[in-house]
Amino acid sequence: MAELMSRRVIFKDYVEGYPTEEHMELLPAAAVDEAAAAEDGSVLVKNLCLSCDPYMRPKMARPQEQWYTEAYVPGTTITGFGVAQVVRSSLPGLAAGDLVSGVTGWEDYSVIKPPFAGQLTKIRREEDGVPLSYYTGVLGMPGFTAYVGFHHICSPKAGEKVFVSAASGAVGQLVGQFARLMGCHVVGSAGSDDKVRLLKDKLGFHDAFNYKEEAADLSGALKKRFPDGIDVYFENVGGKMLEAVLANMKVHGRIAVCGLISQYNLAAGQKDAEELNARNLVYLVSKRIRMQGFVEPDHKHLYPEYRAWVLPHIKDGKVVYVEDVVEGLEAAPGALIGLFHGRNVGKQVVKLANPQ
Amino acid sequence: MAELMSRRVIFKDYVEGYPTEEHMELLPAAAVDEAAAAEDGSVLVKNLCLSCDPYMRPKMARPQEQWYTEAYVPGTTITGFGVAQVVRSSLPGLAAGDLVSGVTGWEDYSVIKPPFAGQLTKIRREEDGVPLSYYTGVLGMPGFTAYVGFHHICSPKAGEKVFVSAASGAVGQLVGQFARLMGCHVVGSAGSDDKVRLLKDKLGFHDAFNYKEEAADLSGALKKRFPDGIDVYFENVGGKMLEAVLANMKVHGRIAVCGLISQYNLAAGQKDAEELNARNLVYLVSKRIRMQGFVEPDHKHLYPEYRAWVLPHIKDGKVVYVEDVVEGLEAAPGALIGLFHGRNVGKQVVKLANPQ
Repeated sequence: MAELMSRRVIFKDYVEGYPTEEHMELLPAAAVDEAAAAEDGSVLVKNLCLSCDPYMRPKMARPQEQWYTEAYVPGTTITGFGVAQVVRSSLPGLAAGDLVSGVTGWEDYSVIKPPFAGQLTKIRREEDGVPLSYYTGVLGMPGFTAYVGFHHICSPKAGEKVFVSAASGAVGQLVGQFARLMGCHVVGSAGSDDKVRLLKDKLGFHDAFNYKEEAADLSGALKKRFPDGIDVYFENVGGKMLEAVLANMKVHGRIAVCGLISQYNLAAGQKDAEELNARNLVYLVSKRIRMQGFVEPDHKHLYPEYRAWVLPHIKDGKVVYVEDVVEGLEAAPGALIGLFHGRNVGKQVVKLANPQ
Repeated sequence: MAELMSRRVIFKDYVEGYPTEEHMELLPAAAVDEAAAAEDGSVLVKNLCLSCDPYMRPKMARPQEQWYTEAYVPGTTITGFGVAQVVRSSLPGLAAGDLVSGVTGWEDYSVIKPPFAGQLTKIRREEDGVPLSYYTGVLGMPGFTAYVGFHHICSPKAGEKVFVSAASGAVGQLVGQFARLMGCHVVGSAGSDDKVRLLKDKLGFHDAFNYKEEAADLSGALKKRFPDGIDVYFENVGGKMLEAVLANMKVHGRIAVCGLISQYNLAAGQKDAEELNARNLVYLVSKRIRMQGFVEPDHKHLYPEYRAWVLPHIKDGKVVYVEDVVEGLEAAPGALIGLFHGRNVGKQVVKLANPQ
């Protein structure tokens, strides 16, 4: 086997406000340290598909500003969820040729060391036959997030009125479909007319609107679509949308807080801006609202239940998954940046290679 | 019986910002409409004790600004919780001389009509022997609010770390004692050194601090007292305190939102001010926090359970209740205004008369 060469995208410097191309750099190909892959518990993989996810923005802030995960380290390779094929493995249960999903690097080849190597999940394609990229989406973190958040945090009941923000995104598009499958009335918001059409025509939302067009009166936009109020809100954005939702929640409503993407790119100087969070939290009291944050890793034991439930729906076409696919490692930084401007339509993935 | 004469305090005009004496007026004594009390289902009572409660401030806002209850109507008598003695009753089960608690008027005598008359609760003094004013406090809405909020919304466990804001108030002082009885470590905040001493010396809080002295670094003040974080926060104030608490919550912490008094007196022009709510709701996600609003009327079925639980503790001295008592109807407006400036030490009550 010839020496393996790998390009990689490094994180260059901490971000304030929106990330730009200058915060990342694609380095030219260099020889892969194959010896490292022979070390106990390590795995050498060829990356096939990379995932762009909102949580990657907070990781770009300085270590002292971290509120959830660890900061990226300037000069090192960006990491994220991905699908890869094993080239060499010192881990029992994983052999060359196996397909895996998990945390990998933004590079052609990655040496994945413990403990991350042990967290790779082997993909049994013969059992499902869905696109490999779905393992960064409907069958990966975003899909499981939608399932846990909607079914286990929102406590939904058939017939209830459900609102989803960022509804065409990796998570939101599934929440809407899961809500519809449960017999709920579901409305979504998104940032372009194309996305709104997608929600209504392809993803089965009962209604949808463009929050940018309704920015002058978000509360009115919701009031029109929920004249009797919202039972369940799946929160992906925060800020002014949360404020409008609180004004329109029903008594004993539930809010699952999945993310607050509107807050992630606010520069330090904007932290006092009116974009920041809802100014009407008093509704929590008067409407007896339960607002609950969650992250999917707390619920890992439910993943097999989720997979068994969702796969038949995917095969039957009752759950569809819209992806925005760009090709090549060189396109990855731009795709991630675009995510924070809402340029993606559907789950943002970066395709690097086909399996062999 | 001579004609009964009654003074009353009316609500004069809607309030922006803090209420002042000008928003209320004590009218001279006028003859009581005793005929009205003879109508079906009405009760004539002599008011003995009136309660000043934070929820009365939102009721002073314009009808279009109401987020919970109904607005007071300019020109009409202020209403609130109180203890009274029945003078004449057309309601079965209530007879002259009976003591009752419930919603009454800020006046010497009130004619209480349906449906409020039927909601009056007869006080069985022979069973408990506690001060009558306690029926506006530890045995009334504030006490039951503390019980429901702490025991049923906070999901507390022995050994957990509990923080209470407005801790010397009508509700807070009980939450602290209930937490201590459960074996929790409990810290409170209040707005004066006298109140802090009260919390530590009389109310059994393990620690307490003056939030005004620590205003420059509320988060640091909490960090010092909760080095490993807060499991349970009983929220009475909102704003900057909520922000500091979110930064110090433990993973899987719970916040019972009882009230947000810091927000009630903000004028419309201040609704964009940085005092407004927490700017770090992202912690809800990363720390998987459950934040839940509640009001005690939803849990009325638990009141007998509460009464049976708390009365022995009061008699044993394990639960004490600190009241700030002013005398006379003429002192009522000032007492209510003082509540919003934190001038009261303990539950604010207005004593009008002794039972006969």
